[in-house]
Amino acid sequence: MPSSLRCLFDPKSIAVVGASPDPSKLGYDTYLNLQASKRNGAYRGRLYAVNPRHKEVLGDTCHPDLSSVPDELDLAVIVVPSQHVPDVMNDVVRKGVPAAIIVSGGFSEVGNRDLEAEVIRIASDGGVRVLGPNTLGLLDPHNGVDTFFLPEWKRTTDGVEAISSPKPKPGHLTLLSQSGGVGAALIDYIVGSGAGLRAFVGLGNQADVSMDEVVSYYAEDDRTRAILMYVEGVRDGRKLMEACSVASKRKPIVALKAGRTESGMRAAFTHTASMVGQVEVYSMAFRQGGVIEASTIEELFDAGKALSMLQPPEGDRALIITNGGGAGVIAADACEQMGLKVPPLDARAVETLKRLALTGRIPSTVSPNNPLDLTGSASSLTFKVASEALIGAAGFDVCLFLTLHHAPAVYDDVVDAVSWFRNTCGKPTVACDVGEAEWARIMRSKYEAYGIPAYPTPDRAARALHFLSKYGQYRSRPETWRDTQSQRDRLPWLAEFSSRERDRALYEPYASELLKQYGLPLLPCEVVGDADSAVRVADEIGYPVAMKVVATTVSHKTDVGGVSLGLRDSIEVRRRFGAMMAMVDRLGLRDSFRGILVQKMAEPGFELLIGSYRDPFFGPIVTLGAGGTYTELLRDYTLRVAPVTPSDADQMMKELRISRVLEGYRGMPGYDLECLRNVIVQLSSVMIENPSVAQLEINPFLLHRSGGAVIDAKVLLR
Amino acid sequence: MPSSLRCLFDPKSIAVVGASPDPSKLGYDTYLNLQASKRNGAYRGRLYAVNPRHKEVLGDTCHPDLSSVPDELDLAVIVVPSQHVPDVMNDVVRKGVPAAIIVSGGFSEVGNRDLEAEVIRIASDGGVRVLGPNTLGLLDPHNGVDTFFLPEWKRTTDGVEAISSPKPKPGHLTLLSQSGGVGAALIDYIVGSGAGLRAFVGLGNQADVSMDEVVSYYAEDDRTRAILMYVEGVRDGRKLMEACSVASKRKPIVALKAGRTESGMRAAFTHTASMVGQVEVYSMAFRQGGVIEASTIEELFDAGKALSMLQPPEGDRALIITNGGGAGVIAADACEQMGLKVPPLDARAVETLKRLALTGRIPSTVSPNNPLDLTGSASSLTFKVASEALIGAAGFDVCLFLTLHHAPAVYDDVVDAVSWFRNTCGKPTVACDVGEAEWARIMRSKYEAYGIPAYPTPDRAARALHFLSKYGQYRSRPETWRDTQSQRDRLPWLAEFSSRERDRALYEPYASELLKQYGLPLLPCEVVGDADSAVRVADEIGYPVAMKVVATTVSHKTDVGGVSLGLRDSIEVRRRFGAMMAMVDRLGLRDSFRGILVQKMAEPGFELLIGSYRDPFFGPIVTLGAGGTYTELLRDYTLRVAPVTPSDADQMMKELRISRVLEGYRGMPGYDLECLRNVIVQLSSVMIENPSVAQLEINPFLLHRSGGAVIDAKVLLR
Repeated sequence: MPSSLRCLFDPKSIAVVGASPDPSKLGYDTYLNLQASKRNGAYRGRLYAVNPRHKEVLGDTCHPDLSSVPDELDLAVIVVPSQHVPDVMNDVVRKGVPAAIIVSGGFSEVGNRDLEAEVIRIASDGGVRVLGPNTLGLLDPHNGVDTFFLPEWKRTTDGVEAISSPKPKPGHLTLLSQSGGVGAALIDYIVGSGAGLRAFVGLGNQADVSMDEVVSYYAEDDRTRAILMYVEGVRDGRKLMEACSVASKRKPIVALKAGRTESGMRAAFTHTASMVGQVEVYSMAFRQGGVIEASTIEELFDAGKALSMLQPPEGDRALIITNGGGAGVIAADACEQMGLKVPPLDARAVETLKRLALTGRIPSTVSPNNPLDLTGSASSLTFKVASEALIGAAGFDVCLFLTLHHAPAVYDDVVDAVSWFRNTCGKPTVACDVGEAEWARIMRSKYEAYGIPAYPTPDRAARALHFLSKYGQYRSRPETWRDTQSQRDRLPWLAEFSSRERDRALYEPYASELLKQYGLPLLPCEVVGDADSAVRVADEIGYPVAMKVVATTVSHKTDVGGVSLGLRDSIEVRRRFGAMMAMVDRLGLRDSFRGILVQKMAEPGFELLIGSYRDPFFGPIVTLGAGGTYTELLRDYTLRVAPVTPSDADQMMKELRISRVLEGYRGMPGYDLECLRNVIVQLSSVMIENPSVAQLEINPFLLHRSGGAVIDAKVLLR
Repeated sequence: MPSSLRCLFDPKSIAVVGASPDPSKLGYDTYLNLQASKRNGAYRGRLYAVNPRHKEVLGDTCHPDLSSVPDELDLAVIVVPSQHVPDVMNDVVRKGVPAAIIVSGGFSEVGNRDLEAEVIRIASDGGVRVLGPNTLGLLDPHNGVDTFFLPEWKRTTDGVEAISSPKPKPGHLTLLSQSGGVGAALIDYIVGSGAGLRAFVGLGNQADVSMDEVVSYYAEDDRTRAILMYVEGVRDGRKLMEACSVASKRKPIVALKAGRTESGMRAAFTHTASMVGQVEVYSMAFRQGGVIEASTIEELFDAGKALSMLQPPEGDRALIITNGGGAGVIAADACEQMGLKVPPLDARAVETLKRLALTGRIPSTVSPNNPLDLTGSASSLTFKVASEALIGAAGFDVCLFLTLHHAPAVYDDVVDAVSWFRNTCGKPTVACDVGEAEWARIMRSKYEAYGIPAYPTPDRAARALHFLSKYGQYRSRPETWRDTQSQRDRLPWLAEFSSRERDRALYEPYASELLKQYGLPLLPCEVVGDADSAVRVADEIGYPVAMKVVATTVSHKTDVGGVSLGLRDSIEVRRRFGAMMAMVDRLGLRDSFRGILVQKMAEPGFELLIGSYRDPFFGPIVTLGAGGTYTELLRDYTLRVAPVTPSDADQMMKELRISRVLEGYRGMPGYDLECLRNVIVQLSSVMIENPSVAQLEINPFLLHRSGGAVIDAKVLLR
C-alpha cells in the first residue's frame, strides 16, 4: 500500500488551507466538522487551520501559511478559490506534505482544464498525491476524518433545528462517489436505514487519484466488507476493470452507473460500431470486472447491506419460509425473475413436514412446498419447529424468511428461531418483515443485530439473495480480467497500409490476408482486373462462384449492385463481369476501384455477425450476433471487452436468442460451435495485437454443421 | 349502487357473531377493534355481540343468537368455526340481514368446496350478499368499520408494548386484496409512509362478492381517488376487465399481480396456445382494462400516492429541475427507461436562463439543459428564480423537482417555490429529496402537505411520473373494453361438425370454408381423392401448385412428408400424388385420411403467425407474431384479449420487433398492413362469435406488398 495514499486516507495530521470563521465560506463548515470530530474523540490526530486573513478560527490558532505550521503534515485540505490553488499547491510541495484534497471547484468541471492541469503538474512534480479537485473529500467514521463542507444541522424556516447531513456510525460499507450530491444523499439514506459506513471517498474530477486506485486501496482494508461505487463515467475503463477484477476476489463491489444517454460519437463504418450502446459496454465491463451492477440507489444499498453481512452462497437455489402465502408468492416470483431457483423440497423434508402437520406441531393446513407457507395461524414456535425440520434439507443454497409480525401469534422471538437456523445450517439467510410502524422496525433491527440482513418488502429481500448469488459466481470465476493490449501492430504491414492509403479501409486482398494470418476460415478467392482472369479463377476454384466489386469507397456493396451470386458457368461470369464494370463507370467509382473479387460460393449455413470496434473508454469491444439481413432486424447480439477467452466466447453464444438454433433445435443438428469459438477468440486477438485496426466486421460469417466461412469482411484502420 | 353492497361497505348496525371475551379467539380482537372504533367515535353506528356461550363480551351485553338482537342489522360479521357457518347463515337469512362478512377460514381455500357452496346457496336464496369467507373483511377509517382480528398492539418478549397493526388515518387510497397477510402488510407500509386510507376490502375466497363488483362500487365513491389491488388470480377475467375498463375512466386503478408460475394446463395443438404465458395474458388484460400494473409493493404504493394526489398529464414530456447533477441524471435515465421523454428546453427558456446566469441571479455555471442542474451552490431563492423563468416554458407535461436539502443554501422554503410553480403552471409535479434523517423527512412531509407527492429516490419519483402519464393515456382512450362474446355459434355447421367427428380438429375443406366465411384471403385450392382429379385441379388453378395430405390426425404435416411444394407440371403432380398415398399407407393413416389438398403456390411474402386460443380465465386470446420457422426461434409475438378492434390490431403490429420490416425497412417498401389488420380483426370475430372454436392458428400467413394469403390454418373445435 503506497504510503502517500495511507497519508491521504488515514492522516495523523491535517491542515485546512482556507479555514474560516465566516459561516458563509466552505472553509467554515469544513474546519467545524474536523474540529467537532477531534473534540468528540473520533479524530485522534492533529488539526491546523491555515488562512492568512485570520489569526483564529473557531477558537483555534490560525496559521498564515503551511510553512508556519509547526508540525509535519500528512494531509492538506484545500478550500480556497480555484485561482489560488496553484500557489497553495506550491506551498504543499515546499512543506513536504505527501497528500492533498482539493475541495474547491472551478476546474475542469466548468471548463478550466488548464488550471487543473497546472495544479496537478505542480503536485506530481513535487510528489504530492491529490484527491479532487471539486470533491466533498473524505468521511471516515473509524479514524474521524471528515472534510465535508455540508452543515450537520440546519434550522428550518419554522425555527426547528434538525439534522441535515447525518454523520454515519462506524461500519463496513465503503462508498466511492463521482458526485458529492449523490454521495451526501446516499450517506443520509444509509444512516437512516440503520447501517454504518467504513469510509466515504468523494472522487471529484479524479485529476490525480483515480477510482481504480481507491478501489484497490480499500480492497486491502480489513474494515471494508463491501465497496459501493456511484459512477458517472470513466476515463480509463480498462484500468478500472483490472483493478476491480482483482479487488472483487477479496471484497464485493457494487456499482450504480448514471448517464444512460448515448454518446453518438462513433463512426458508422460497421453495424457493430453503430449498434452497440454505451450502457451495454459499461454493463459488460462491470460484469467482466466482477462488479455487481445496481440500477437504483435502493438496490445499491440493499446489495451493499447483504454483501457486507453475509458470505456469498455456493449456488442459486432459494428456500423461502413464511407465514404469509401471498408474500411468499411475491418473493418466489421475484427470485425466479432474477434467475434464482425455487426448487421443491426434498423428499425427507416433505415427509417430516407432513408428520408435523398430522401431529399438530405445525398447522394441519400447511402443504410441504417451497415457498413453505406456515399460514397466518403460525406462531414463533411454528417457525422454530419448521426450521428444525428443514435444517438437514438438501437442495438449497440460500434462505429467505418472511416473518410477517401482523399475525397474532408471531413475536420477536421468531428472530431467535431464524438465527438458530442460520447458525446451524450455515447458509446465507436474509429476512423480510413488511411495514413501517413500530413492530416492523423492531423486527428488522433485531434481525440485523443478529447479523441477518432484513428488508421491508419480499422483492427487496429476494433481490438481496440475487446479489449474493451473483457475487458468489463472480468470486468463483477462475481468472481475473487482464488488459493484454499491445502498443504496436503484430502485423507491421497494417501500419504501412494505413499510412499509404488515404481513407484507410482495408480492401481485398488485404482484408482476406489479415484474416488468413489469424487462421479465420476463408473461401477460395482472388481479385482480378479483367474478364479472362475472372473466368480463369472461377474455373480453378469451381462453380458456382460469387463476384464482388473491390473499391476503397463502396461499403454496402449490395445496395449499388456490386455483388453477383451463384454464377454457374464461365458465360455467366463473363457477362456479369462486363455488367459490373459498366456499373463502376456509371457510378464514377473508377478512382476507388481496385478489381473484382471472384470467390467460391459458400454452402448454405447460419448467418452470424462477428465484429469489433474500439470504445473510447473501454478499448476493443467484440460482438457476436445474428448476421446478414437479420442483423438490424433482430438486434440479437452480445459483446465483451477484449481480450475474449474461449470460455467468454462460449458464454457469448449462450447469451444470444438464436443460441437455440446454434446448439440444435427441434431435432435439427447443431452448428460447429468450436469453429465459432475460435473465430471469436481470433478476432479478439486481431484487435488486441494490432492497434492499427479500428473496426473489423465479418457479416455474414456462415456457420456450418462442420466449419464455417467468412463471406464478407470489413476492416477499418486508424 | 345496490343497497345490499351499501349495507356491506357502510353499515349502520353490525353484529359480530362469535364475539368472545377469550383473547385467543379471533372473535376477541374482531369485537375489540370494532368496540374501540365505536368508543373513539370513528364508527357511529350500533354494535352487537352474538355468542350463545357468553352473557357479556368486553363489558357489552352478548346475545345468544341473531334473532335476539333487538334491532335491524345491516351487517353480520361471522367469526365462528367453519362447520357452524351454515347454521349462522340461516340465522342471518331469518333475521333479514342484507350483508355478511365471513371472516372464518376453513372453506374452499383448504379444499372444503362443498361447505362453501352450501353457505353461499343459503345466502343467495335468502338475498344476503357475502364478503369472504376467509377474509380480514373491512377497514374503513372514514366510517370506522374495522373487522380485523389482528391486534393493534403487541408486547415484545422484552416487554415493550408497541404498535403491531397500525390503524390508518382517513385518506383517499382504496385497497382491495386477495390476501389478508399482504393486505395487513400493505396497510402497515402505507401508514408508515404517512399516507391515509379510504378503505381496505379483504376479498377472501370471493365466493359471492367479487373483485369486479368492489371495483365498480368504489369507482363511484367520492372519497376514493385511486384503487389499489393485490391480485393472486381471477375466476372471470372478462368481468373484471369490463368493470375496470369502465371504472378506470373515473378513478385510476393500480394492480400488483402475484403468482407468475405458468399453469401448463393448455393443450399444445397450436404454437399459439403453448407459447403464450399466463403472466402476459394478465398484463395485457390489465392494460386493456385500463389497469396500471405495478411489479412490487413499493411501486403499488408509489403509483397510488401520485395518482391519488394528482391529475394525469396530457403528454409524456418531463422537465427535471435539481440542485444535484448526479441525481438529475439518475432521474432522466429512469424517465427515459420508462418511456417518458426528457426534451431540451425551448429557446425562450434557454435565453432567459442564460441571462439569469450572466446577471448572477442563478449560479454562472448553470447550463440551460433538461435536467436543469442549478448546482450545489443553489439556494432556495435560486429555485424560485429558475421556476419563474420556466413558468412559461413550452414542451413539457410533467415536472420533477429534485431538491436535495444537503446543499448548505437549500431550506424548506424551496417547497414554497415548487408549490408556487405547480400552482401557477398547473402541471402535475412530483418531488424528491433523498435521505432518511430528519431534514429529508421534513422536506417530504412539507411537499405532501402542499399536495405534491414526494419520493425518497430519483427513480421512484420518475416512476411516479410514468404511472401518471400511463393513466393519462388510459383515461383518454376513446372506448372501454366490452365483452361481446356470443353464447352460440354464428356458423351452426361448426357445432354439427364438432359433434360428428371424434377428435374435433377441423380439416380441409372445412377449415378453409370457415376462414372464407370470415373473408380471410385464401389461395385457390381443392381437396381431391385421386391423381386424375389432382391434375385437373392443378391445371385449373395454374402451376406451380402445392399438395398437402388432409387427415384428421396429422398435425405437423411437414414432419411426416405430408407436404409437397412447387410442383411445376402435371407429371410432377401425378408422381407426388402416388408418393403421398404410399406414405399414407406406410404410416397407417388410411382411417384418418380425408384426401389431398391441391393449392396454388403463393408468391413469396413475409411469414406471420396469427392465432387464437381460449384462456381459462380471460377467454379468447388473439396473438400476432413472426411466423414460419421463425415462430419458435424469435418468439416475437404480442397478444390481446378478444374482441380486437382495428386500432388494437394496429397497435399489435407496432409492438412486434419485426414491425420495422412490416412498415418498410432500409429503403424496402412496406407490406399491406390494412390486409393484416383485417385478418387479425376477423380472426378475433371467429372466436368471439363461435364458442365451438377452441383454437385457431394461421401459420404462416404470407403478407405481401399488396394483399396476403393463408398458407396453413389449423382449427381445433371444443
